[in-house]
Amino acid sequence: MDDRYKIALETVAKINEAGSKRIEDAVGAIAPDFHRLIMSFAYGDINSRPALDLKSREIATIAALTAMANARPQLEAHIVGGLSVGLTREEIVEIIMQMAVYAGVPASLNGMMAARAAFATVDGTAKKKPAQD
Amino acid sequence: MDDRYKIALETVAKINEAGSKRIEDAVGAIAPDFHRLIMSFAYGDINSRPALDLKSREIATIAALTAMANARPQLEAHIVGGLSVGLTREEIVEIIMQMAVYAGVPASLNGMMAARAAFATVDGTAKKKPAQD
Amino acid sequence: MDDRYKIALETVAKINEAGSKRIEDAVGAIAPDFHRLIMSFAYGDINSRPALDLKSREIATIAALTAMANARPQLEAHIVGGLSVGLTREEIVEIIMQMAVYAGVPASLNGMMAARAAFATVDGTAKKKPAQD
Amino acid sequence: MDDRYKIALETVAKINEAGSKRIEDAVGAIAPDFHRLIMSFAYGDINSRPALDLKSREIATIAALTAMANARPQLEAHIVGGLSVGLTREEIVEIIMQMAVYAGVPASLNGMMAARAAFATVDGTAKKKPAQD
Amino acid sequence: MDDRYKIALETVAKINEAGSKRIEDAVGAIAPDFHRLIMSFAYGDINSRPALDLKSREIATIAALTAMANARPQLEAHIVGGLSVGLTREEIVEIIMQMAVYAGVPASLNGMMAARAAFATVDGTAKKKPAQD
Amino acid sequence: MDDRYKIALETVAKINEAGSKRIEDAVGAIAPDFHRLIMSFAYGDINSRPALDLKSREIATIAALTAMANARPQLEAHIVGGLSVGLTREEIVEIIMQMAVYAGVPASLNGMMAARAAFATVDGTAKKKPAQD
Repeated sequence: MDDRYKIALETVAKINEAGSKRIEDAVGAIAPDFHRLIMSFAYGDINSRPALDLKSREIATIAALTAMANARPQLEAHIVGGLSVGLTREEIVEIIMQMAVYAGVPASLNGMMAARAAFATVDGTAKKKPAQD
Repeated sequence: MDDRYKIALETVAKINEAGSKRIEDAVGAIAPDFHRLIMSFAYGDINSRPALDLKSREIATIAALTAMANARPQLEAHIVGGLSVGLTREEIVEIIMQMAVYAGVPASLNGMMAARAAFATVDGTAKKKPAQD
Repeated sequence: MDDRYKIALETVAKINEAGSKRIEDAVGAIAPDFHRLIMSFAYGDINSRPALDLKSREIATIAALTAMANARPQLEAHIVGGLSVGLTREEIVEIIMQMAVYAGVPASLNGMMAARAAFATVDGTAKKKPAQD
Repeated sequence: MDDRYKIALETVAKINEAGSKRIEDAVGAIAPDFHRLIMSFAYGDINSRPALDLKSREIATIAALTAMANARPQLEAHIVGGLSVGLTREEIVEIIMQMAVYAGVPASLNGMMAARAAFATVDGTAKKKPAQD
Repeated sequence: MDDRYKIALETVAKINEAGSKRIEDAVGAIAPDFHRLIMSFAYGDINSRPALDLKSREIATIAALTAMANARPQLEAHIVGGLSVGLTREEIVEIIMQMAVYAGVPASLNGMMAARAAFATVDGTAKKKPAQD
Repeated sequence: MDDRYKIALETVAKINEAGSKRIEDAVGAIAPDFHRLIMSFAYGDINSRPALDLKSREIATIAALTAMANARPQLEAHIVGGLSVGLTREEIVEIIMQMAVYAGVPASLNGMMAARAAFATVDGTAKKKPAQD
């Protein structure tokens, strides 16, 4: 295991290790290198850089995924990740609410639905979902 | 002037008052109510809520506009705004770099170009642009 | 209840009151202010302005949500809303078909699927869905 | 010239013939069939269908292009087209304003800038632009 | 049946005839002309042009739909289509992986999930889905 | 210089070395690590993988950037890159034309404008542009 992947896994462990594991399981059979490549880039190269703390990084990621409005599984995973690095539920809701200004009301509203689902996952009250997808 | 618009203008004054004035001038002739309506919503209703500090809010907005990749004038304005509320140039660059993971390398690269332009505006070294557009 | 929210609820009542109520129920627990804020903006400030009739406004909204292709629940809700303000099913289908030109065939085709589902909701033949999401 | 292309050109003549001619000139050298193919589809197959009047169609197109926020030349062309089929400047501004709700404030604001430019084109007060692009 | 529609159906027969039939069934009741219009354009006018082979065309379509990240049913259909015209599973996975660079990791990851589902459809191991939608 | 960056620069040299150099110059002052990080990922990790030839990869990238319709400088750069790895101008035009089906006519039309500009760059007949942006 090279250094970037090792740093990536250490960084992911602080954010959402279960989510990373689900990705590995989901794509391993069809794209065996993919998990290592994207994790090494996303968490080994970028999110582990000391120039910005993980809490600020999760604010940025939750905002971007809410605004892009086309990556629901990843938005849910990063809402869980935001809680892991110290954001409160109220702060996460506030970030998603703010996106109504920049990406429109539907994007913000659908982000709220993702937050509701992610909070239920954390509370252990979520309806069971098929692996990753 | 109602309370929401008043709070909006006070909030904008902390972020990017010149940008708000440019919008007012640019759209006033064709849409006289527009500046008041959108400022009252964006800054009177949302960005002035105490649940999240302005620094975190600008992280979210810079991330979202970089990722959406279709609102260059607003991205430049919020990079200037991020500096006003205490983000460093290095932190802004880091947020934009992070978007390479979530929105792709071109969105991140074009965000860097917006940062370069916004920094030049702040430094007084920018090439002159036509009003707002 | 302030005037903007009151006007909002009166305007929503002409379009899709049940949809507004579903949103209120769905996000109330995690974002108690959200329904009032977005409804006051969307329907109190904007959609209630006399400069454009509600039928034209629903044409615009159905077109935009079909073209953006990332807000299926809201598209279904506004297809129901379009019927409420006097658009025919044939006109709604025609708007969605037109989006094949501007947003591509997949966006138009997925819009047709939303129309089929919304029509089934109106006919009482829809499969039951979990609240809002 | 086949029937679809003939109907297309007749339909375009009611909306924005100069814009269609600019496209033909701009892409003719590199893609000689393109103008005929896209015009026959957009205006021969779709926009000429009697199920929706041209005014309603331009409402839909202006809304969609404002919301998509990535097709400025086409948005300007359809704002000119909207005026040709009987929309007033106030109605066009209202459609674009409404998009702040569904696609966010930056998309709406940049749509206003397109309207300002299109109105100046119609008034003969626009700054000269290079052909199409 | 006119020539364009005939060519369209012949071209579709080489790519994903079952998918085309599913669309026809799904939208026939609400939009009876839609299948003929979009197939004639997509496959009669464009995808049947000899200037590019079908294998290259499916590379382009799979890449675009992965990057747009808002047309999952169509992406699955074109992954099946890519296999029909001679792309290997490894090549399709590689195209989708490449989109991580241009559209971001979430778009690429969700594309992988579409590939997993499409491969399962081809293998006859897919979970049953409701028609088209 | 590590191996990934070395492979990246060798791969870029086959596609569009001048474009890579322009990026390095444009962002070097504000984001000194960015060029190495994104090139190592885009060309060291992904585009250099032997599972797909560079010609197929440029088909995918030109299609995706045309369809995303928000990355004009990168689209122009990859049109130049497509020519470098053996695509003809006719094939590139055909890929962009095909995107009218999947991403709509405006995206395809604006892609054609990018092709016209990129071909002019290659022919040495382009109007001079400011560095990168």
